[in-house]
Amino acid sequence: MKKEPRDIRPADGQSDNGRRRFLKGGLAALGGVAATSVAARAATPAPEITEVQEWNQFLGDGVAARPYGMPSQFEKHVVRRDVEWLTASRESSVNFTPLHDLDGIITPNGLCFERHHGGIAEIPPEKHRLMINGLVDRELVFTMDDLKRFPRVNRIFFLECAANSGMEWRGAQLNGCQFTHGMVHCVQYTGVLLKTVLEECGVKTNAKWLMPEGADASGMNRSVPLEKALDDCMLAFSMNGEALRPEQGYPLRLVVPGWEGNMWVKWLRRIEVGDQPWHTREETSKYTDLLENGKSRRFTWVMDAKSVVTNPSPQAPLRFKGPNVLSGLAWSGRGAIKRVDVTLDGGKNWVTADIQGPVLPKSLTRFYVNFEWDGKPLLIQSRAIDDTGYVQPTKNELRAARGTNSIYHNNGIQTWHVRENGEVENVEVS
Amino acid sequence: MKKEPRDIRPADGQSDNGRRRFLKGGLAALGGVAATSVAARAATPAPEITEVQEWNQFLGDGVAARPYGMPSQFEKHVVRRDVEWLTASRESSVNFTPLHDLDGIITPNGLCFERHHGGIAEIPPEKHRLMINGLVDRELVFTMDDLKRFPRVNRIFFLECAANSGMEWRGAQLNGCQFTHGMVHCVQYTGVLLKTVLEECGVKTNAKWLMPEGADASGMNRSVPLEKALDDCMLAFSMNGEALRPEQGYPLRLVVPGWEGNMWVKWLRRIEVGDQPWHTREETSKYTDLLENGKSRRFTWVMDAKSVVTNPSPQAPLRFKGPNVLSGLAWSGRGAIKRVDVTLDGGKNWVTADIQGPVLPKSLTRFYVNFEWDGKPLLIQSRAIDDTGYVQPTKNELRAARGTNSIYHNNGIQTWHVRENGEVENVEVS
Repeated sequence: MKKEPRDIRPADGQSDNGRRRFLKGGLAALGGVAATSVAARAATPAPEITEVQEWNQFLGDGVAARPYGMPSQFEKHVVRRDVEWLTASRESSVNFTPLHDLDGIITPNGLCFERHHGGIAEIPPEKHRLMINGLVDRELVFTMDDLKRFPRVNRIFFLECAANSGMEWRGAQLNGCQFTHGMVHCVQYTGVLLKTVLEECGVKTNAKWLMPEGADASGMNRSVPLEKALDDCMLAFSMNGEALRPEQGYPLRLVVPGWEGNMWVKWLRRIEVGDQPWHTREETSKYTDLLENGKSRRFTWVMDAKSVVTNPSPQAPLRFKGPNVLSGLAWSGRGAIKRVDVTLDGGKNWVTADIQGPVLPKSLTRFYVNFEWDGKPLLIQSRAIDDTGYVQPTKNELRAARGTNSIYHNNGIQTWHVRENGEVENVEVS
Repeated sequence: MKKEPRDIRPADGQSDNGRRRFLKGGLAALGGVAATSVAARAATPAPEITEVQEWNQFLGDGVAARPYGMPSQFEKHVVRRDVEWLTASRESSVNFTPLHDLDGIITPNGLCFERHHGGIAEIPPEKHRLMINGLVDRELVFTMDDLKRFPRVNRIFFLECAANSGMEWRGAQLNGCQFTHGMVHCVQYTGVLLKTVLEECGVKTNAKWLMPEGADASGMNRSVPLEKALDDCMLAFSMNGEALRPEQGYPLRLVVPGWEGNMWVKWLRRIEVGDQPWHTREETSKYTDLLENGKSRRFTWVMDAKSVVTNPSPQAPLRFKGPNVLSGLAWSGRGAIKRVDVTLDGGKNWVTADIQGPVLPKSLTRFYVNFEWDGKPLLIQSRAIDDTGYVQPTKNELRAARGTNSIYHNNGIQTWHVRENGEVENVEVS
């Protein structure tokens, strides 16, 4: 068919008389199409477009206007949020990643949740130092320039606070996956393997533990077993290609893949090498799991396999009957996610979710389920299985094993109840 | 060894008398250590730290202070830049990714280069429509909500402008990899396979070509062969987890993996399906490669394998003798990078670079070479080989094949000359 040259004008239905032009009659014309899933997707009630859109009609900003780009003005609702009553002050508190508004496996840097205890330190990089002392042959002090001259690696890892979902031990409390599960993010870290730098210092044969320590006002410290340090820990200075954000520890943080978030000490200034753990505040008073028998589990380092459906969720209600995309995240501190199962009816029937995008060890993994919503209530759950065979447990299984005195390591299955009007609430099921 | 509890104070050299304390004597003490590579890295001349750093001493910002986080105040130099004389106006121009300041394979959203022809359109997402018309069974108009109800995928891809390195056809012109190679970025896209949406419309058997068209003031359009459209093209609405940035086409853009950047139409409003190419301005007047014999190559879609060393480079001089990390990027529009070779002496000796991080098809790939700099001049080059066996050519090989009348598809090997004072300049070698 020979085509005439076409001007670039909004389609006006005149250039090809024999064809239906949906735009000519406005979107209302779509109402007449047979009620297949085609029409069900494409015929969402939407205002007719009768005028040429104004964004065609004027020049927008030029290329020099935004040296560092920002999100669209229409995305202002996509932000980290905090829960004001959660802590006594905001300088020692946490904010939450807006999981319900995100997709894929990479968390954009500006939306990565963070927790700190003394406010965000602002450290001039040329003044920052990392000292390694203790049971080493050579105690050394490194500048940032020094660290950037060691062999470098790039790894994509999730970071989860051990207290993520902590409120939920005692039942369905917070209404939104941002709040129930939002102490997690995932970025590509660039840095040096801790092993490389420890080898530079020469670790003594009786060394067994490391104590990383932060340079902020709160001086966070934890004990890290040497075996883990020499395995896959990193000294990271970049996240998703650019320097760490101040709230993620600029200019340097520790990365402890798959393990409790607070071990990933930010604003890292010192690592002491020793032969015993230090039993710091952040692994005794905090970050131990008080069991029903009055004893505490301590050094519960690994973040167990976990998943959550991010859409639909309380902050992301269902708005359409018919075809919908259920979306969620799964992760495991032990390795890669092998499979995610999803149920829409509270566990009577399970389907295997579609995992989309790279599947990397100790990284977030994105899954989807395409489903048809008939407008009836749903009870949505997801269940992650990692490549060790570990299966994400129910909250009740966790409570039976550990009691409810802890706020840590709640990796139980999350249930969302979808009402007939599409609203979603956080519920518990027995 | 029994350890006493330690306060969290800057190391003062008193708690363990038997050990050398480097900090006690200041960093100058390191000058006394044997001049091994250890000392060479750790003993960079740096001001003594004698006072407690002030960032320990006051509370920083709380968790509610930054709903959308920003880079450190100390990273203000990491920005997109434009070249003012390159185009007649900034509303139809390009800016460049600061490759020399980045690492890993993910480009942070705010630093992704962009090119536009009518300024940045600002489109309210609820008013945006995508129409698919022409040789289809059902011509349909989609809202953004509609598109988010189709099965979804996540893919990490590079995007490179075909004119990247275009100035360099005529010799070493621009002084910095941001300017010679900065029309490239790499993010994880979330969206729908174009194939899925085309199937919804029903592509007629005589259809062979697609024409995507943009909604901005310039109405960019290109012809895309149907085979490519049905292969791996995407309709993308997210980049690195959040909505597209306005300058990357919010709320919707086409993704044409591995192919010329301007085919990835931004602010995508319409796709016409036809049986012949449209020969639009952007594939006739522009984006054809004028050869020496007066004829033009057209429809040169694939971005050939390419690489560049980003550090050292003119904007990132060498500052230290001894151990250094050479860093660079490689990519191919035909698939994955198989190998990158690097030379420091203009091609007499080549080493295989260390590829770090995931190696994905049609994505940026990061490579490093750890080398010792003795302070003598260097001629640095990198050469990429992709998994089809294609080897990145020299610029002279390209000129011999195609002449110098084009500004497109310059994927030739880049040479940096490092002077004895560490400064780096863009050079040509025969």
